[in-house]
Amino acid sequence: MFDQRLAQRAAENLRKVREKKPLVHSITNYVVMNFTANVLLACGAAAVMAHGDEEVEEMVSLADALVLNLGTLTRARVETMAKAGKRAGLRGIPIVLDPVGSGATALRTEAAKRLLGELAVRVIRGNPSEILSLRRHGAASKGVESMHPVDEALDAGLSLAKAHSLTVAVTGKVDFVTDGTSIRRVHNGHAMMAYVTGAGCAATSLIAAFLSVDPDPLDAAATALAYVGVAGEKAGQEERGPGSFQIQLLDALYTMNEEDLKRGARIETKGW
Amino acid sequence: MFDQRLAQRAAENLRKVREKKPLVHSITNYVVMNFTANVLLACGAAAVMAHGDEEVEEMVSLADALVLNLGTLTRARVETMAKAGKRAGLRGIPIVLDPVGSGATALRTEAAKRLLGELAVRVIRGNPSEILSLRRHGAASKGVESMHPVDEALDAGLSLAKAHSLTVAVTGKVDFVTDGTSIRRVHNGHAMMAYVTGAGCAATSLIAAFLSVDPDPLDAAATALAYVGVAGEKAGQEERGPGSFQIQLLDALYTMNEEDLKRGARIETKGW
Amino acid sequence: MFDQRLAQRAAENLRKVREKKPLVHSITNYVVMNFTANVLLACGAAAVMAHGDEEVEEMVSLADALVLNLGTLTRARVETMAKAGKRAGLRGIPIVLDPVGSGATALRTEAAKRLLGELAVRVIRGNPSEILSLRRHGAASKGVESMHPVDEALDAGLSLAKAHSLTVAVTGKVDFVTDGTSIRRVHNGHAMMAYVTGAGCAATSLIAAFLSVDPDPLDAAATALAYVGVAGEKAGQEERGPGSFQIQLLDALYTMNEEDLKRGARIETKGW
Repeated sequence: MFDQRLAQRAAENLRKVREKKPLVHSITNYVVMNFTANVLLACGAAAVMAHGDEEVEEMVSLADALVLNLGTLTRARVETMAKAGKRAGLRGIPIVLDPVGSGATALRTEAAKRLLGELAVRVIRGNPSEILSLRRHGAASKGVESMHPVDEALDAGLSLAKAHSLTVAVTGKVDFVTDGTSIRRVHNGHAMMAYVTGAGCAATSLIAAFLSVDPDPLDAAATALAYVGVAGEKAGQEERGPGSFQIQLLDALYTMNEEDLKRGARIETKGW
Repeated sequence: MFDQRLAQRAAENLRKVREKKPLVHSITNYVVMNFTANVLLACGAAAVMAHGDEEVEEMVSLADALVLNLGTLTRARVETMAKAGKRAGLRGIPIVLDPVGSGATALRTEAAKRLLGELAVRVIRGNPSEILSLRRHGAASKGVESMHPVDEALDAGLSLAKAHSLTVAVTGKVDFVTDGTSIRRVHNGHAMMAYVTGAGCAATSLIAAFLSVDPDPLDAAATALAYVGVAGEKAGQEERGPGSFQIQLLDALYTMNEEDLKRGARIETKGW
Repeated sequence: MFDQRLAQRAAENLRKVREKKPLVHSITNYVVMNFTANVLLACGAAAVMAHGDEEVEEMVSLADALVLNLGTLTRARVETMAKAGKRAGLRGIPIVLDPVGSGATALRTEAAKRLLGELAVRVIRGNPSEILSLRRHGAASKGVESMHPVDEALDAGLSLAKAHSLTVAVTGKVDFVTDGTSIRRVHNGHAMMAYVTGAGCAATSLIAAFLSVDPDPLDAAATALAYVGVAGEKAGQEERGPGSFQIQLLDALYTMNEEDLKRGARIETKGW
């Protein structure tokens, strides 16, 4: 049922990240900066957070991937993201967009649409409400939490992927990833992830790290989600609550070996 | 000695928060954003941090409670807080003010006084020095730590409550909560809380969550403080230091059941 | 081989910090604010993070030491740091500079050079690449990670110390500290520290705390680095990954007693 090639690919991507130590530049929200940086270090990547309008172009030029995350947004920050994203595009540096709270406020929905329109975004990762909000007619959202199950966002994800020639990753109980043609479903993860702020943002940053070693965005996104999902499952084995789960998740990302990931990854390719 | 009705109320409020999953919008300082969000998730609420001047009115309109926290303050942020607070007032969304560092700098003291004057603040929670600084003649403060024991702030708290028709919560070894007429003393807590940055801010955000399900601000504040205090006691049972204490506090907030809280809450009503 | 006077001094400095509870004012980056505050509390100091241009002069006047950290920098923040630093200089409050990412972007390199030129910086702590970037001809840097081993930065550190009459601390596998004449090497630490974001920034803030009780910047910096290094070794004894390591580091900073530190400190004075 689960795709062996992709399980193997997950393990290879993890090995490559640890060998390459890609620098992931995140322009991200203040809530998750620390956790995101620690997640990237735990997987073997290097992390830099720089959002000064005066330096983002220079910093992103040193990076292997760029994350744009719309939490704690301001209008000025959107301009900075557009600037960094354009430079990344010129340099062929892959961009991952996390439209946190798109659908909740006009600022966020418009920022997500603008960045999708102006930049060469390679992958967008959001929860179902966020992805639904980016359709023509939008969708209701409650803050940064999804009000919709993953499957409701399937059509929206497919049309978004086609419209912008990018890969869409929608995360939830089962994640799906699509480039508008193919689809992958990732069955890894743990319920406690919903109690760790920034778990979704962390997944986004791992997709960026994997994109720096895997040219196929569909594979990169699906394998990165399997990696964080298997780590979540391992972290949840001795579940004592969301505090210790968060710590064990960092430990699991770090201690995960290729064999564990290959065995644990549950990625489905025939889920249409 | 301890009030059985309030112990029961604490348990009921916790149950109601978990059922309702209120969205708490925090405009708060950068030091505690991550911890505050995780505390709110651990108690069963949803958290959104949005401070963009362009979106706070829209975001707070989706929320069930608003937290205004004066740490890492700027003048521009005060304007944003005033804007969000006015919208919250129009919508009847309860506001909780945390005057971090009031008394330490003019910016913070004046911001606290302005917000108290302009907004329909339902509860203010601070340490003794912060509350004393809001009296007519102020009080010395050293950064964000209190230089005064809780009881010194009792008179200041009572007159502040009367002057602004709100509820004042002063936290320390024993917390007190007053609406200017009645008083509650909360005897829960653990000494290690003083070694976790943002423990006070976390208490403030839990008061906001409880206010969204309990219309009585005196009860909501006292029961929320009992809840975090009982969680602190549980976290302190296997005390190995402030790092693991912080993690165990999150676990304890999450795993706390109603019976534990009812049994553990030590709220006194006759403490005058 | 290791200096007994300095091992003793480390223990005394830790005792003095716990007695004095110095207030360390950090103008620092958003990634590490929470961790830095918790590190300072764990060692017995008090922490305040204030970066509002309107209040930094007033806040630093209450402080016992000032940390200026160049992560997540903007041009406006540099002005605020200069303002706070000048006030600190007038008051004789020791300043510690952490030139995060100097060498990676012009904004950061120029900010570091400007603050070194304008302010009475007592100690600068960086990784080898950052210190090398502050020589006349600079050095390459990759984001905020060092591309150079510590020893390559030795000459740069010595000339930087002489040129600015300050103490330079370069951290890595073995740390070195110099005032341009004498040198100390600190052999404490743990490999897992490289997987905790802000571990270097935490060392900087501990140097600030130690400076508030030890007038000798060479001794203050070396003993603070030994303290965090011994804590790292203790945290690494039951190593399960970078998440739990970070938590155990906070625990170890708090539970460290003077005898442990005296016994564990491995500071070399004859390392020339």
